[in-house]
Amino acid sequence: MSTDPLVIFTPSGKRGRFPVGTPVLTAARQLGVDLDSVCGGRGICSKCQITPSYGEFSKHNVTVADDALSEWNSVEQRYDDIRGLKKGRRLGCQATVQKDVVIDVPAESQVHKQVVRKRAEAREIVKNPSTRLYYVEVAEPDMHDPSGDLERLIAALRKDWDLPALEADLSVLQTLQTALRKGAWKVSVAVHLGDTTFSPRIIQIWPGLYEGTLYGLAVDLGSTTIAGHLCDLRTGEVVASSGIMNPQIRFGEDLMSRVSYGMMNASGSTEMTAAVREGMNALFTQIASEAQIDPALIVDAVFVCNPVMHHLFLGIDAYELGQAPFALATSDSLSLRASELGLQLHSAARVYILPCIAGHVGADAAAVALSEAPGKSDDLMLVVDVGTNAEIILGNREKVLACSSPTGPAFEGAQISSGQRAAPGAIEHVAIDPVTKLPKFQVIGSDLWSDEEGFDAAIAQTGVTGICGSGIIEVVAEMRMAGIVDAPGLIGTAEQTGSPNCFTDGRTNSYLLYDGTADGGPKITVTNTDIRQIQMAKAALYSGARLLMDKFGVDHVDRVVLAGAFGAHISPKHAMVLGMIPDAPLDKVTSAGNAAGTGARIALLNVDARAEIEETVRQIHKIETAIEPRFQEHFVNASAIPNAVEPFPILNSIVTLPDVNHNTGGGRRRRSR
Amino acid sequence: MSTDPLVIFTPSGKRGRFPVGTPVLTAARQLGVDLDSVCGGRGICSKCQITPSYGEFSKHNVTVADDALSEWNSVEQRYDDIRGLKKGRRLGCQATVQKDVVIDVPAESQVHKQVVRKRAEAREIVKNPSTRLYYVEVAEPDMHDPSGDLERLIAALRKDWDLPALEADLSVLQTLQTALRKGAWKVSVAVHLGDTTFSPRIIQIWPGLYEGTLYGLAVDLGSTTIAGHLCDLRTGEVVASSGIMNPQIRFGEDLMSRVSYGMMNASGSTEMTAAVREGMNALFTQIASEAQIDPALIVDAVFVCNPVMHHLFLGIDAYELGQAPFALATSDSLSLRASELGLQLHSAARVYILPCIAGHVGADAAAVALSEAPGKSDDLMLVVDVGTNAEIILGNREKVLACSSPTGPAFEGAQISSGQRAAPGAIEHVAIDPVTKLPKFQVIGSDLWSDEEGFDAAIAQTGVTGICGSGIIEVVAEMRMAGIVDAPGLIGTAEQTGSPNCFTDGRTNSYLLYDGTADGGPKITVTNTDIRQIQMAKAALYSGARLLMDKFGVDHVDRVVLAGAFGAHISPKHAMVLGMIPDAPLDKVTSAGNAAGTGARIALLNVDARAEIEETVRQIHKIETAIEPRFQEHFVNASAIPNAVEPFPILNSIVTLPDVNHNTGGGRRRRSR
Repeated sequence: MSTDPLVIFTPSGKRGRFPVGTPVLTAARQLGVDLDSVCGGRGICSKCQITPSYGEFSKHNVTVADDALSEWNSVEQRYDDIRGLKKGRRLGCQATVQKDVVIDVPAESQVHKQVVRKRAEAREIVKNPSTRLYYVEVAEPDMHDPSGDLERLIAALRKDWDLPALEADLSVLQTLQTALRKGAWKVSVAVHLGDTTFSPRIIQIWPGLYEGTLYGLAVDLGSTTIAGHLCDLRTGEVVASSGIMNPQIRFGEDLMSRVSYGMMNASGSTEMTAAVREGMNALFTQIASEAQIDPALIVDAVFVCNPVMHHLFLGIDAYELGQAPFALATSDSLSLRASELGLQLHSAARVYILPCIAGHVGADAAAVALSEAPGKSDDLMLVVDVGTNAEIILGNREKVLACSSPTGPAFEGAQISSGQRAAPGAIEHVAIDPVTKLPKFQVIGSDLWSDEEGFDAAIAQTGVTGICGSGIIEVVAEMRMAGIVDAPGLIGTAEQTGSPNCFTDGRTNSYLLYDGTADGGPKITVTNTDIRQIQMAKAALYSGARLLMDKFGVDHVDRVVLAGAFGAHISPKHAMVLGMIPDAPLDKVTSAGNAAGTGARIALLNVDARAEIEETVRQIHKIETAIEPRFQEHFVNASAIPNAVEPFPILNSIVTLPDVNHNTGGGRRRRSR
Repeated sequence: MSTDPLVIFTPSGKRGRFPVGTPVLTAARQLGVDLDSVCGGRGICSKCQITPSYGEFSKHNVTVADDALSEWNSVEQRYDDIRGLKKGRRLGCQATVQKDVVIDVPAESQVHKQVVRKRAEAREIVKNPSTRLYYVEVAEPDMHDPSGDLERLIAALRKDWDLPALEADLSVLQTLQTALRKGAWKVSVAVHLGDTTFSPRIIQIWPGLYEGTLYGLAVDLGSTTIAGHLCDLRTGEVVASSGIMNPQIRFGEDLMSRVSYGMMNASGSTEMTAAVREGMNALFTQIASEAQIDPALIVDAVFVCNPVMHHLFLGIDAYELGQAPFALATSDSLSLRASELGLQLHSAARVYILPCIAGHVGADAAAVALSEAPGKSDDLMLVVDVGTNAEIILGNREKVLACSSPTGPAFEGAQISSGQRAAPGAIEHVAIDPVTKLPKFQVIGSDLWSDEEGFDAAIAQTGVTGICGSGIIEVVAEMRMAGIVDAPGLIGTAEQTGSPNCFTDGRTNSYLLYDGTADGGPKITVTNTDIRQIQMAKAALYSGARLLMDKFGVDHVDRVVLAGAFGAHISPKHAMVLGMIPDAPLDKVTSAGNAAGTGARIALLNVDARAEIEETVRQIHKIETAIEPRFQEHFVNASAIPNAVEPFPILNSIVTLPDVNHNTGGGRRRRSR
């Protein structure tokens, strides 16, 4: 055997000696090299393409001769004539080993190819989808040994692909006989490989080689928006993404108003379930149309959502989530047929819903945990998904804790006098001159600051319309840094602050950010009520994080990850000045973007990740802030900007917050009693 | 421990010593005594009733004192006040052991009670249904340790009932929270215990103790009729039975005409599927209404049918079954949701369809094999299910063979000049006087023979309308015994036979059975064409059986079992004179009644029987008569009455068949050339 040719595969580095004439695919399989094949080596699917390398390889101590592989054969020639093979490529099932050879498996020929992520620190996604395609040749019926067509198909799949005892969906039974005969006993099948709910099943059959692919959907079902990502289950690529407003908004902007709607109206819950499912189908139609595919090719879908959306999507009244003890109907993951939820995908499409962590920490938080994997981190990571309800996860390899905190909608620009959703024209960045105490800002849609030349022209189309969430955080933090707002959160007068933009506004003071009234535009101000709203929101967020730190027994965290679309736009420095997040090195405060959506995509593309997050969620320790006495204490302390008791040493090494106090003697307080 | 009281259970005979104060239910469980309980020993379900026996038991060498069990307690008193306990009964969970005691477990307290069968030789049915009821107390939600309501329910079911990891149907999730709170955290659940297709699942939940039962359907889906038996899954009893005509009859009387309809009409197959499913729902409504139950309490259904009905019920075009090689789409058993087949039962009801044996030997034959169990017989058993297609099974513990044979509809009275279905007025028994060669007969609806006094009055209502299948067999056999028909099947002239009832009828002779024309009634005759039809049918049946005997390597069988409704009415002696069945002692030729329906009932009540028949069917060797050269030879020999070559020694020891020959020289033969 030692004189047999040596075969070395790259990038895996796996190597072994094989008799002359061994097909490369066979060698790859025997070595466990990840080389794809749909047709099982019959030279028709072209998925097993490889690139032989020739010449001297000192690294491998091998020289590859030009005739290391067998000659280009008629099967490869025919394939090249019809489809075209890339230069240098061979079909792994046709080319046979003749002499020592180094063979590269290109990314597109790998089954478990890693999907490229944009962020450097992001975990890799390994592909291992729920549903795969197989090509197979089936024995013809024999009256001497009668057996069903399905049983012969399953036997062939077992023999060629080592698949377990399969069953077949009724729709497959109904099309099986025609497909087998049309394909002259050669067929392709889509097999759902099964999970704890579903036994492994054939879900579709095509005569001959099916040259298409199968698709899956990763869906982030939010209270406000529903975002879907259509993925090619073979390549793992996102082929289309789209989003719609959640049609439930007509029943209530925020979650609790929807829970109330369900309580006040007999069929309220049912209506909301119907609305979200209809919306979902509209979104799927939109995405499929964008990708120009038949929605019936979508065979799998993964959903992440908060607990209220979870229940309303499943048709469970969310009543119990509106009151202590916030009992979920179920917290475990769910594996369902899409048809059970009225979703119009492949007739046998499956739906997987990630587990919820607790009554107010949902499958979306679980998806964040899957994407950001704090439990695999050496650093102690704080992951915050900022929304109307913040989900907070703190952990490292040792343990992981989670809680939710009711931040309210202030961070989304709601309940702020000049607040608005992020949209062109909204102020998103603010800077206040420490000397003049005058503001400048940027609006969404332009890179120019408001004091730069060309700003007016740049924003002529949109105008300046309001302040979005990230702008609110920046302006309040800038006001604090400029001494316009004091630590307890009072805006000073023009006299106290030295800023001409401060003005008395009823019983408190406000700060003028922009006055567009001369041109018929709005007057954009920050009122003391706005400051109070932000204080409440950020105190809720901080005190949740601080509570988890208490439980963990630490006073600082190594890293802060801001998840969610909003998190992507928050300035770490301003967030820390506000005291929204614990003190940490600024370069360790990063954004994970739509981590929940990413978690959904990971679970879609890799069934092992589903088992992983289920196990992770079982191990996450859930903290219910409502019953933790220290939460109130932390909340009161965190109402100050940045905090009444916490030192924030790293922040203080970067910025000096003026020690001002705009309270002139408590007159307001007396009046309010 | 040896001084602890001795507890002896009857009828099991299991015994053991238990500390004073041990509840009887606990003792029973520890000994593995089959004592039911739904509430888990909480004294509310009353399913664990037992009867203590007192006095001297020399058989057990024990004396039971009057105070052998604890005193009647308040729980028993309350139960007795409200529901009434039968005299002598105690609740096994309340009564505790005080002294040596003998305890009888009545049949209705046994979970795996054997179901009583009418026939002495029939195998016992052991109860082990797919779906069971459990009562459980669930932990309340706790904010200190948040978990879903479902997860706590499942934990309670695991703890109290040792149930595996359960899932819940969506409908259960939707009603779970209300049920738990309405029942003050005490609920009853119906659990489908799972099979190879479905994971174990909770399919329904009720607040508190659900005092009802669950039902299942055993359905025999025949080409002509659909018969359903509604069974109580707890007791195993048939609570209602009903039948309807198969609505597919409008597409064709027999199977092959339905296959043709599907081939000739684009939507033919779909129409037939819709028709049979609609019929099925009509039948279920009818049965549920007869039993006065809600069809939504029917949680399981088992179907048996021939392969064509199998395919058309499942929505599979039966085209391939209309031509060699008669390939089934699938031959394995199927486990489906009832909703997939459009059946209106419990929303989560399951359907089990028995495996088919081969292209023309269906799930009905498998059900017969399950009911009659030839593979468990020491005797070599021939089981014949007589219909338009006869399914024939031959076997013993050593091996089992099966085939089908196309008998055609003659045995059902079709294609016979005076033939009709079995109905009041049809001639079912015939006797021909060996001396006068005159016939007498009985009709369905009267026990009187036609020559008895009062016959005319007895049949005044129905008249004499025709001959049914069993009547046809008897008249032809009687004609053979009286020498009116010869061995090759020719009816003689009045002169040849000495019977005034023989008359020339075209080119052949006929035999007059009844002349009602004087009263406006029919003239009922047996023509030579009728004889030919019966010869074809019985030759097909016999040659199938004979072929199996060849394959088995035997020349005789020990027992013959006639299955099917028709089989129940066949006279063994006449069948043997005809040569329909192999020679055998008459007392070894028995009827199994509707063995297919019984098989369906066995599979419904006992999931282990499903695994058993699947294994049996895998081991049955299938013979395709169409490709067996000897089948034709056997068929030709079997066309003679009883047979041209087989000796039939046992038959000949009972009856002497006259050696007549009515062929007067082959004139007919020459003409027919």
